[in-house]
Amino acid sequence: MRRTLFEQDHEDFRLLVRDYLAREVLPVYEDWRRAALVPRELFTSMGKLGILGTAVPEEHGGGGRDDYRFNVVIQEECARAGVTLGGLRTHLDVVVPYFTGLADAEQRARWFPGLASGELYTAIAMSEPGTGSDLAGVTTRAVRDGDHYTLDGAKTFITGGHHADLVIVVARTATDPDDRRAGLSLLVVEKGMPGFTVGRRLEKIGLAVQDTVELFFDGVRVPAANLLGEEGAAFTHLGRNLAQERLAIAVGAVAQTRAAIDLTLGYVRDRTVFGRPVAHFQNTKFELAAMSAELEASQALLDAAVTALLAGELSPADAARTKLFCTETQGRTVDRCLQLHGGYGYILESPIARLYADARVTRIYGGTSEVLKTIISKSLGL
Amino acid sequence: MRRTLFEQDHEDFRLLVRDYLAREVLPVYEDWRRAALVPRELFTSMGKLGILGTAVPEEHGGGGRDDYRFNVVIQEECARAGVTLGGLRTHLDVVVPYFTGLADAEQRARWFPGLASGELYTAIAMSEPGTGSDLAGVTTRAVRDGDHYTLDGAKTFITGGHHADLVIVVARTATDPDDRRAGLSLLVVEKGMPGFTVGRRLEKIGLAVQDTVELFFDGVRVPAANLLGEEGAAFTHLGRNLAQERLAIAVGAVAQTRAAIDLTLGYVRDRTVFGRPVAHFQNTKFELAAMSAELEASQALLDAAVTALLAGELSPADAARTKLFCTETQGRTVDRCLQLHGGYGYILESPIARLYADARVTRIYGGTSEVLKTIISKSLGL
Amino acid sequence: MRRTLFEQDHEDFRLLVRDYLAREVLPVYEDWRRAALVPRELFTSMGKLGILGTAVPEEHGGGGRDDYRFNVVIQEECARAGVTLGGLRTHLDVVVPYFTGLADAEQRARWFPGLASGELYTAIAMSEPGTGSDLAGVTTRAVRDGDHYTLDGAKTFITGGHHADLVIVVARTATDPDDRRAGLSLLVVEKGMPGFTVGRRLEKIGLAVQDTVELFFDGVRVPAANLLGEEGAAFTHLGRNLAQERLAIAVGAVAQTRAAIDLTLGYVRDRTVFGRPVAHFQNTKFELAAMSAELEASQALLDAAVTALLAGELSPADAARTKLFCTETQGRTVDRCLQLHGGYGYILESPIARLYADARVTRIYGGTSEVLKTIISKSLGL
Amino acid sequence: MRRTLFEQDHEDFRLLVRDYLAREVLPVYEDWRRAALVPRELFTSMGKLGILGTAVPEEHGGGGRDDYRFNVVIQEECARAGVTLGGLRTHLDVVVPYFTGLADAEQRARWFPGLASGELYTAIAMSEPGTGSDLAGVTTRAVRDGDHYTLDGAKTFITGGHHADLVIVVARTATDPDDRRAGLSLLVVEKGMPGFTVGRRLEKIGLAVQDTVELFFDGVRVPAANLLGEEGAAFTHLGRNLAQERLAIAVGAVAQTRAAIDLTLGYVRDRTVFGRPVAHFQNTKFELAAMSAELEASQALLDAAVTALLAGELSPADAARTKLFCTETQGRTVDRCLQLHGGYGYILESPIARLYADARVTRIYGGTSEVLKTIISKSLGL
Repeated sequence: MRRTLFEQDHEDFRLLVRDYLAREVLPVYEDWRRAALVPRELFTSMGKLGILGTAVPEEHGGGGRDDYRFNVVIQEECARAGVTLGGLRTHLDVVVPYFTGLADAEQRARWFPGLASGELYTAIAMSEPGTGSDLAGVTTRAVRDGDHYTLDGAKTFITGGHHADLVIVVARTATDPDDRRAGLSLLVVEKGMPGFTVGRRLEKIGLAVQDTVELFFDGVRVPAANLLGEEGAAFTHLGRNLAQERLAIAVGAVAQTRAAIDLTLGYVRDRTVFGRPVAHFQNTKFELAAMSAELEASQALLDAAVTALLAGELSPADAARTKLFCTETQGRTVDRCLQLHGGYGYILESPIARLYADARVTRIYGGTSEVLKTIISKSLGL
Repeated sequence: MRRTLFEQDHEDFRLLVRDYLAREVLPVYEDWRRAALVPRELFTSMGKLGILGTAVPEEHGGGGRDDYRFNVVIQEECARAGVTLGGLRTHLDVVVPYFTGLADAEQRARWFPGLASGELYTAIAMSEPGTGSDLAGVTTRAVRDGDHYTLDGAKTFITGGHHADLVIVVARTATDPDDRRAGLSLLVVEKGMPGFTVGRRLEKIGLAVQDTVELFFDGVRVPAANLLGEEGAAFTHLGRNLAQERLAIAVGAVAQTRAAIDLTLGYVRDRTVFGRPVAHFQNTKFELAAMSAELEASQALLDAAVTALLAGELSPADAARTKLFCTETQGRTVDRCLQLHGGYGYILESPIARLYADARVTRIYGGTSEVLKTIISKSLGL
Repeated sequence: MRRTLFEQDHEDFRLLVRDYLAREVLPVYEDWRRAALVPRELFTSMGKLGILGTAVPEEHGGGGRDDYRFNVVIQEECARAGVTLGGLRTHLDVVVPYFTGLADAEQRARWFPGLASGELYTAIAMSEPGTGSDLAGVTTRAVRDGDHYTLDGAKTFITGGHHADLVIVVARTATDPDDRRAGLSLLVVEKGMPGFTVGRRLEKIGLAVQDTVELFFDGVRVPAANLLGEEGAAFTHLGRNLAQERLAIAVGAVAQTRAAIDLTLGYVRDRTVFGRPVAHFQNTKFELAAMSAELEASQALLDAAVTALLAGELSPADAARTKLFCTETQGRTVDRCLQLHGGYGYILESPIARLYADARVTRIYGGTSEVLKTIISKSLGL
Repeated sequence: MRRTLFEQDHEDFRLLVRDYLAREVLPVYEDWRRAALVPRELFTSMGKLGILGTAVPEEHGGGGRDDYRFNVVIQEECARAGVTLGGLRTHLDVVVPYFTGLADAEQRARWFPGLASGELYTAIAMSEPGTGSDLAGVTTRAVRDGDHYTLDGAKTFITGGHHADLVIVVARTATDPDDRRAGLSLLVVEKGMPGFTVGRRLEKIGLAVQDTVELFFDGVRVPAANLLGEEGAAFTHLGRNLAQERLAIAVGAVAQTRAAIDLTLGYVRDRTVFGRPVAHFQNTKFELAAMSAELEASQALLDAAVTALLAGELSPADAARTKLFCTETQGRTVDRCLQLHGGYGYILESPIARLYADARVTRIYGGTSEVLKTIISKSLGL
């Protein structure tokens, strides 16, 4: 189905990104995959081209276009090229919006140029060992001490934590026995601050080049000037961007669903079994036809949600519906596509194997399908 | 998700239809359901209000607005009210477009006023006993004899055949041993023509008020002036409207999916089991949340397809994707909704039971899911 | 997979039943279906052959073989023949066991000969309007008055209530505000008792020949001698037979799943579309192969459960697992089989349409899938 | 459901295996997993205990019990312990039966003692780059030259190829243009033969400790005495054991499905989210209940198939049904179990993540689900 989401600007930007990936990433991507890490320089090189800073105001060296469609284009082109660029999506779609939404004038002057140029790469640290994504259970503490906070605690499942120059840490700055969600604040911890260490990398089913680490904070002195937003208001701050964060995962899910189908179309045409191309079997045709219909439904739902987001009208429940549907569809689709690859689909050198292994997390992070259903059911009055 | 498909005109029309159904249909609908037939007067009464003739040119007494969204509104409002109006959808979305698309000047003058006023109700006769929907197998013959055709044969599964004043019959006017799809023509048979008889009504799983009949043609003399379109070109004529016909089924499927969910939301709030409202169980919440997400995906896909149709850009494959996805979703949804009703859901007096029984045909008629997958896979180059 | 469940006796009995159905039922079954009722004489004629009384002690004219496999054979043969014999399954698998398990000597002498001969046909009345299958909510009251109870209340969804000579009614004989399940008793109401009336028949999605009615009790004087089991112990009595009742539904589900597949195998071989037998399409082959595998899993699970039942070892949770799995499989299978029939599958004259319409209730009655999951999860320690 | 498959001997053997795994494997398994290889000594140590040679005749040092249930026990205990022992299953269930079934007297004397003692570890090489599992496409050639064959070609996806002392290679010894399945022979290549090299290990989605390699044969001189079975009869030889090979995969699938559910039951009881154990949510209960029912169906089907195998009655179609159903169930179950683990389920240190990653291959190897459906549909006369 013809899409109506994009304008000329976005298509120009798409060509820029596509060209960049073809020139700078694809020739070396296999090395990154083996090393299970993208090089830090990736981000500065993308920053130079203006790919990373579209949402940063022009006065700070950015593109001054707070238009989420540019982020959509980046994810679509990465999926098309068959690459994942570490925690880039988290940086762009999750963390940078906290900076652009919450930074005060001094912080904007201090950090925005680096965000635009790619010299500052970011992460956000919410989950803790034992509490998972339940913010109410955060035990990392930050105690005010003059113009500093003293930060102690541990975080886990932190995407991009290896390379991050700035980490937004959710910490408890006050204790309210009646409301465990109160008293949480966002503190920006900088690479190299004494007491801040990056722990081991967690081995995952997929997402090999995306570093996911544990972070430890042992008496880290964080300047009060690094408080992002209001003290004690982290829960509200974090809630405000949730719709876009969830949408961002749906964007990736749909783009990778499309990539999986395209890959499989190519494979079944080339691959012969029992003397016939796999594409000639009716089962192959029907599987791909069914997946293609589900893909178009995902895309239509997603594009409607992005349109709503741009209009400032995307409700949390509709964001939840979109993520739920698009990631569930992705899960089913990559499984069926892999099956059509036979044994080759199980070998990690095949792109479909990686799409399969990567996909399993999208139904979990950014709100599990179960959490999303809870949100949706509330919106239905249940 | 907020929809962007409709304009003010359509919303005004919606209120007109909604009001009509509430006043004229709902109070007597249970009688119609018991009689398993809508009264013939329904159509003239709708025609008077201008509901039936939106697509008929103004010069012939119609609304002069060939805008498919009016048809969408009618189906949505019927689903919302919990009624099916016999073969009305087939009349409006399938048959009338053949008249508006193919009638010559004389035919327009002769038939269009009646189509606009509801005095002419129509049906189309394609399927035959033994050949089903495979047009290539049509054996009903029309032999030219001066200014008439002599028509012989039998048709089955004819929606609206009981009330129809005009029946478009697909008949073989020539035999081409090399191309079984050639030589088919469309002849308009009128109620009361000698030799034309309406056979028994077929008892179906659902769609109780929609009459589905067999038709017999025994030496019916049909004036050559009743040839619709070109002689021998039926296959092409029938293909041209297929995208809209399939879309029409998807429109109904989505509207009824929504009706099923709305019904169920009401039921689970009211109904108590084991001392708690059914709505309080997490399973109920999760089921309805998941269905709600799938419904929004259906709606988004459908609205994108209608938009494409209005722009003259809806491809056969995209129409197929839309019908496939929306009817498969409908099938799953009505099943899950019925389950949440418990034993009451199995009793035909409950609206969900009727939605369930009605839904089973949408994956079959207008192109089975298997036929649709074949069309889609061809568009994928398989 | 070769089954090991049956012995020679059962196979002899199978031939008796098969022959009976072929001779006495099939020639007139279409009339019964149109009348939506089996004739009362069916049961006496089956009783004469010894088909109904296998579990009744020999001294009372029965077969004296309390071996559930005879009941399995009856359901399998009915499914094979494509017939449902009204509420026969409920009579044999649900109600008769209450009599054989709970009747005292006087009651045995009074009722068992009739059960064996088919002169007494039975039903059980649990559900009430508004409370469904939640026994704790029973409001039908029986007040002791000398050697009688006076019974007042209403029941609904009563299978076999039209023909029943004896109806076991669950009634409240005492009120315990702390335990709503206490104080329930089983009273046998006889056809013709003053104040006992049979209400309207409920129109259902399927099970056309199975009468399902409402029953009303208006000051019915029931002799105390008609108390079955202990006063106040109904909840316990009803629980004891639950495993077999659920198994009985699974037996029917598997037998009908097999019938659906067999029907479809025949249909796809005979039916031609686009110039080829439906059986030649890979989709047809794969669908039936997948269904055949699921059928064998159902059958293996069922036979293991019947074996456990015969050994007195079938746990409530395993009965629940068996009913859950076998009926869910039935639901999916009949849907897929119908689809392979195309439009003909939607017409009630096709046997697959009836299997489809009948099947929708098995996931609901005798414990909905949701109730079964609750039972199973408790057995898992959740 | 209580199983009836095993006798006392098997239960004794089970304790032996369980004890061995607890003592010798579990303490060091994490090291093996990191090294992505089991040590070669594993097999000799198991051999010493008599675990490997149950099927080898006593005269050659084996257990003399060709009873497949011993193999079932080994797989069940490995799954219970959460370990995979490299290619042990392939060695025991696939390769050894070729030796016991086809070896001549001289070969028996030469190889059986080593098979019994674990000093000879084996693999079989069928798949080739480009042809996959389609035997008809084998291009590896063996040319007879006096009392030797000269072997040239390459094989891929060879389980256990790293450690294997003996590799059964499927090679083309004659060319029949009319029958591409004719002219294939089984040659036993020994570790260290000049020209035989083990290529790179293929990185897979899962099965980390199972080595899967490419093998190259460059003018390898294989003694004619190493021909296993008849020259040119490989196709027949390989077909004879297929039912058991497929059953073996089903055995593992069911054992791992059970392990996944058991793991998840433990996890949801211990893990708290939003202040409540995950086990308290109805969704958790219903998911596990549904999985538990499907597991019991798998187990019942599998045990019936093993019983048939022991009786020499397991048909290829029933073996196909069993593998199809049990591996499809495994695929769905591990996915649902992982979901209940949340983010932790995506980290490879969690056992469920490994079960998930391992499971994806079972629907592919030993006959894909599509191949199995083809076999089943033929048995249905389609």
